[in-house]
Amino acid sequence: MIRVAIIGATGYTAYESILILLRHPQAQVTYLTALPEECAPLTEVFPALQGRLDLPIEPVDLNKLAGCADVALCCLPHKVSMSFVPKLLAAGVKVVDFSADYRIRDVALYEKVYKVEHTDRENLARAAFGLPELFREKIVSAALVANPSCYPTAASLALAPLLKERLIDPADIYINAVSGVSGAGRKTALAFHFPEMNDNLFGYAVGTHRHMPEIEQILTQAAGQLVQVLFQPHVVCMDRGIGESIYCQPTGKITPAQLTDLYQAFYAREPFVRLLNKPPSTKNVAHTNFCDLYATIVKDKILVFSAIDNLIKGASGQAVQNLNIISGLPETMGLL
Amino acid sequence: MIRVAIIGATGYTAYESILILLRHPQAQVTYLTALPEECAPLTEVFPALQGRLDLPIEPVDLNKLAGCADVALCCLPHKVSMSFVPKLLAAGVKVVDFSADYRIRDVALYEKVYKVEHTDRENLARAAFGLPELFREKIVSAALVANPSCYPTAASLALAPLLKERLIDPADIYINAVSGVSGAGRKTALAFHFPEMNDNLFGYAVGTHRHMPEIEQILTQAAGQLVQVLFQPHVVCMDRGIGESIYCQPTGKITPAQLTDLYQAFYAREPFVRLLNKPPSTKNVAHTNFCDLYATIVKDKILVFSAIDNLIKGASGQAVQNLNIISGLPETMGLL
Amino acid sequence: MIRVAIIGATGYTAYESILILLRHPQAQVTYLTALPEECAPLTEVFPALQGRLDLPIEPVDLNKLAGCADVALCCLPHKVSMSFVPKLLAAGVKVVDFSADYRIRDVALYEKVYKVEHTDRENLARAAFGLPELFREKIVSAALVANPSCYPTAASLALAPLLKERLIDPADIYINAVSGVSGAGRKTALAFHFPEMNDNLFGYAVGTHRHMPEIEQILTQAAGQLVQVLFQPHVVCMDRGIGESIYCQPTGKITPAQLTDLYQAFYAREPFVRLLNKPPSTKNVAHTNFCDLYATIVKDKILVFSAIDNLIKGASGQAVQNLNIISGLPETMGLL
Amino acid sequence: MIRVAIIGATGYTAYESILILLRHPQAQVTYLTALPEECAPLTEVFPALQGRLDLPIEPVDLNKLAGCADVALCCLPHKVSMSFVPKLLAAGVKVVDFSADYRIRDVALYEKVYKVEHTDRENLARAAFGLPELFREKIVSAALVANPSCYPTAASLALAPLLKERLIDPADIYINAVSGVSGAGRKTALAFHFPEMNDNLFGYAVGTHRHMPEIEQILTQAAGQLVQVLFQPHVVCMDRGIGESIYCQPTGKITPAQLTDLYQAFYAREPFVRLLNKPPSTKNVAHTNFCDLYATIVKDKILVFSAIDNLIKGASGQAVQNLNIISGLPETMGLL
Repeated sequence: MIRVAIIGATGYTAYESILILLRHPQAQVTYLTALPEECAPLTEVFPALQGRLDLPIEPVDLNKLAGCADVALCCLPHKVSMSFVPKLLAAGVKVVDFSADYRIRDVALYEKVYKVEHTDRENLARAAFGLPELFREKIVSAALVANPSCYPTAASLALAPLLKERLIDPADIYINAVSGVSGAGRKTALAFHFPEMNDNLFGYAVGTHRHMPEIEQILTQAAGQLVQVLFQPHVVCMDRGIGESIYCQPTGKITPAQLTDLYQAFYAREPFVRLLNKPPSTKNVAHTNFCDLYATIVKDKILVFSAIDNLIKGASGQAVQNLNIISGLPETMGLL
Repeated sequence: MIRVAIIGATGYTAYESILILLRHPQAQVTYLTALPEECAPLTEVFPALQGRLDLPIEPVDLNKLAGCADVALCCLPHKVSMSFVPKLLAAGVKVVDFSADYRIRDVALYEKVYKVEHTDRENLARAAFGLPELFREKIVSAALVANPSCYPTAASLALAPLLKERLIDPADIYINAVSGVSGAGRKTALAFHFPEMNDNLFGYAVGTHRHMPEIEQILTQAAGQLVQVLFQPHVVCMDRGIGESIYCQPTGKITPAQLTDLYQAFYAREPFVRLLNKPPSTKNVAHTNFCDLYATIVKDKILVFSAIDNLIKGASGQAVQNLNIISGLPETMGLL
Repeated sequence: MIRVAIIGATGYTAYESILILLRHPQAQVTYLTALPEECAPLTEVFPALQGRLDLPIEPVDLNKLAGCADVALCCLPHKVSMSFVPKLLAAGVKVVDFSADYRIRDVALYEKVYKVEHTDRENLARAAFGLPELFREKIVSAALVANPSCYPTAASLALAPLLKERLIDPADIYINAVSGVSGAGRKTALAFHFPEMNDNLFGYAVGTHRHMPEIEQILTQAAGQLVQVLFQPHVVCMDRGIGESIYCQPTGKITPAQLTDLYQAFYAREPFVRLLNKPPSTKNVAHTNFCDLYATIVKDKILVFSAIDNLIKGASGQAVQNLNIISGLPETMGLL
Repeated sequence: MIRVAIIGATGYTAYESILILLRHPQAQVTYLTALPEECAPLTEVFPALQGRLDLPIEPVDLNKLAGCADVALCCLPHKVSMSFVPKLLAAGVKVVDFSADYRIRDVALYEKVYKVEHTDRENLARAAFGLPELFREKIVSAALVANPSCYPTAASLALAPLLKERLIDPADIYINAVSGVSGAGRKTALAFHFPEMNDNLFGYAVGTHRHMPEIEQILTQAAGQLVQVLFQPHVVCMDRGIGESIYCQPTGKITPAQLTDLYQAFYAREPFVRLLNKPPSTKNVAHTNFCDLYATIVKDKILVFSAIDNLIKGASGQAVQNLNIISGLPETMGLL
């Protein structure tokens, strides 16, 4: 039984991680921590968990943590995370980190995008990037896994086959993404107040979203060529779910059947990637760790549609997938 | 042309009032005010109004107000309102007040329920209660109208015919009310954060909601007998709309046909009360000033269903209805 | 490993049953059937199940069924169910039946309410009513379990403690119920077309809902006294969830603390009943088998709030709970 | 007072047209017709109109129509429309037609896209295309106006300034569009059943949507150069609203400030086009005739965001705008 601590246990990704682990046959939550000012009885923070998990949310005690956990799911915000993860690792606890701190390998890029100095370059250099479908072999032996962001997960799985095979122009890619509101976290804001957000759709972070460089890094690495994308996110009145529609320029002639073959070969052994013959629906991936893909050709352009649950394959499900991998458990355990 | 100032122009009731007045043929918004710290360009506060109304939201200037407005819609919170309304009246401006300050005629009750001393008993004594279907004759000549709350409007129109005719036990009435989220105002709260509120329903303020004594006051006055109700509100994932289902004990034998006749006679000349032959839908009254009613008999009990738009008949539409009355305009103007 | 057939596998209750069983450690779906005209590849009927369950939906073959299933979850409509269940039982397969056919013990009442002759009185007499919290001892040894309806589950769990202890007038009970749209099934109708149903709330089936006699039967049996209720359902723009607010007349003096003690004692060993200290939220029970309750006193009346997920504790979760019981498995297996 | 008949008065566009005309100071609905099998009391078809409009929905009688209407809003489906519009015109009634029959000027293209023979080429040749911001001068004197589709309205207003000024490559345009469900009409379908559609987003009609050639025709005509677009629609859990995010390749160097100037000059006198400095929200245009636009530059590409209410500026509001124009009324009358 793998014992799991959840650090920063007051947001949606912590909550979804708990839900998954409650059904996991070989892992169990043993410790919940938060900043002292956010600590409260678990059922106050998440009333839905009453009767399901009997743990307090406590200020973190590293000794206690080291004694009761094999792996930590670290749900802290960026900057806070890199001040804490080294201590977790030093205590002998493996870490799946949800923040941006170990995702961007290029320190200068990280510091430019996140406007903060990187204070843990040592572990950054050692961290595996936790997108198993593309980087599984590096995750297996990692002590620290940087869990990918939601948008980049959906985009990277959609584009990797095309870019690896050099079938599209790596500098002419448009990613139109639409997310449910939980992607913005659990902190209130007028824009997400129910009467404002209900029946609403809008774009945001035009040209500036921090997931744009993350997507480019993943795909550049996966494809072995420099990839540049135009990524535009939107938020819509859904709890959860991301739908991305991606427009690419083929480098040569390709048929829809060849596209289908390509994706089938690429993802033949991936349990969490499903290939459809029409655009996916976010509802069909809600509460699951699947990424649903559909690639086709329209007017000589390639369109790829990708759908995930931002909180599961885009966060907590993928984290448990990584936890399974680094713990030597079957990768799908607790996730199907 | 009646000139209208809106005092406290940053919330939903102010916004809906502006929308109605933009379409009103004989009234126009001339002045928008807010607390200094809330003042901002109108299109920042309400981006939807860009291109429709070209007024700033300014700190109030009583001289300016007196010069540019005949009527003020006062959308301030209780306690603030009664400190400001006397000045408006003294400046010769008629007032439709949205707060609780002039609604509860019994000062002791007001002070108990709202936990604040009443500081304007003089105007309280003179204020008309702005539910035209029940108290129109007193509104006509009033300088100050206390605009009713949303739940009480729906409940009182549903129950007044029965109570006036003494057809139900005035001490055995259950009002089950369900409201859209805009009823809670525009201030953010975790409970109303979209991912928390979407697909959600819950009761609140059990036994303590401030609209309970308001309902009792209205119905006691309308019926000429002491009325006591058990009022239980709920909030559900709708922008707007209130549905109330009301359970009463008949004092004698009554048939559904007699019920129908009663309501038809009672509301025969009321343009904003519609009588249905099945339970009303909140969507059918959304963005309208209608109150839809259906009364029937089940197992010897009387059930009355009532639906309004909490922001229109429950607030801004009724305010404009009152504004029309005190301004000598046709009561339905701008509202159908 | 308990092998489970799902009969009538095209609706929401079948779908939710499959989802639960996919995560159940000791049960597995082995056979899916439907009417010949409704048979289709599973992923056409439920695209979300792609990659999770590799079974066709076939016309039923009783021999095959007898060979591959220990228990059948029978999701057929009433009348169809009672023509088929006897064959299942004769084939040696235990049955949890979702229809009304084995719920109403009084044949005359059944025939009046459902307007159809009862054709399987023999099994009706033997069926256990599948509300484990009230009738567990009869379920244990049953070959046929009548799975309760959604509204009655929420209402009965809320009221049973009060009625068993004779603390309320059994003829003066108002049950105001609000349900998500999945309660109406998967068949399209204009009223449930998204643009009609979104942001909408309305009452229906006034005085005529078929769950009213079911509630009365359950509570009459549980309490050992004749119980009559006024049950009024509503539908609101939620996928799932039922919230009931129930108003009762105490027979004597009772304090809130006594109420709390009563419920705590009554449900002390029930893993799926949670007692709260404020009204429950439907979202907190969504996708769970919990029934959340809160009972209190307002103006000398007793109010009980009850919330369940209509598809889980109100249907498929409760069915698996019953399946566990009749299969000798721990009752909570696969459900927490 | 302009008298207006609504032909095919059972769908959403008819309903919204009625709502607008009820508030229109110089137009009034005088006649409502539908196919005989769809005729019913207006309040059965649209219960929300009870007390607001007292007209039956009748089978059409051309003589009666000619006697009571100056203009017909023809809300029939394509193919049916072109069999009926000639009779309306022959009867001396001006027509604003909501169908596709008079939108596509190229008969061969129409017949290919709509898979039906065009039977009224004469009026097709005379029809004005009812997008006033681009083709006002031809509408003024038209007896027949082809009211544009929803998606093309949003796309064309977004792109016209860039294409007219030849600032973008006319063959490298990606239009990602997301629509509320009312865009699919009032006919039920499983995909739009509330529990399926709620919290859902999906793409559809990949490469085949009939609005793609319409967009190309409008822009080719407006720009005087051949325009080809890749248009991809999606549907999301909103009642109403379209948000389009459009990606273009500039032909030369251009700054954001120049873009802003371009749009401001282009739409300086247009009351229904609003230029924002951030991406528009569909909620801010809901129930209005506005098209909100924001154009900017990201990574040397031009992004244009466009938002309309699909039922208003995308259908009924634009129809009334056209009705105003052909009736000699101020263009904004009843629409602000």
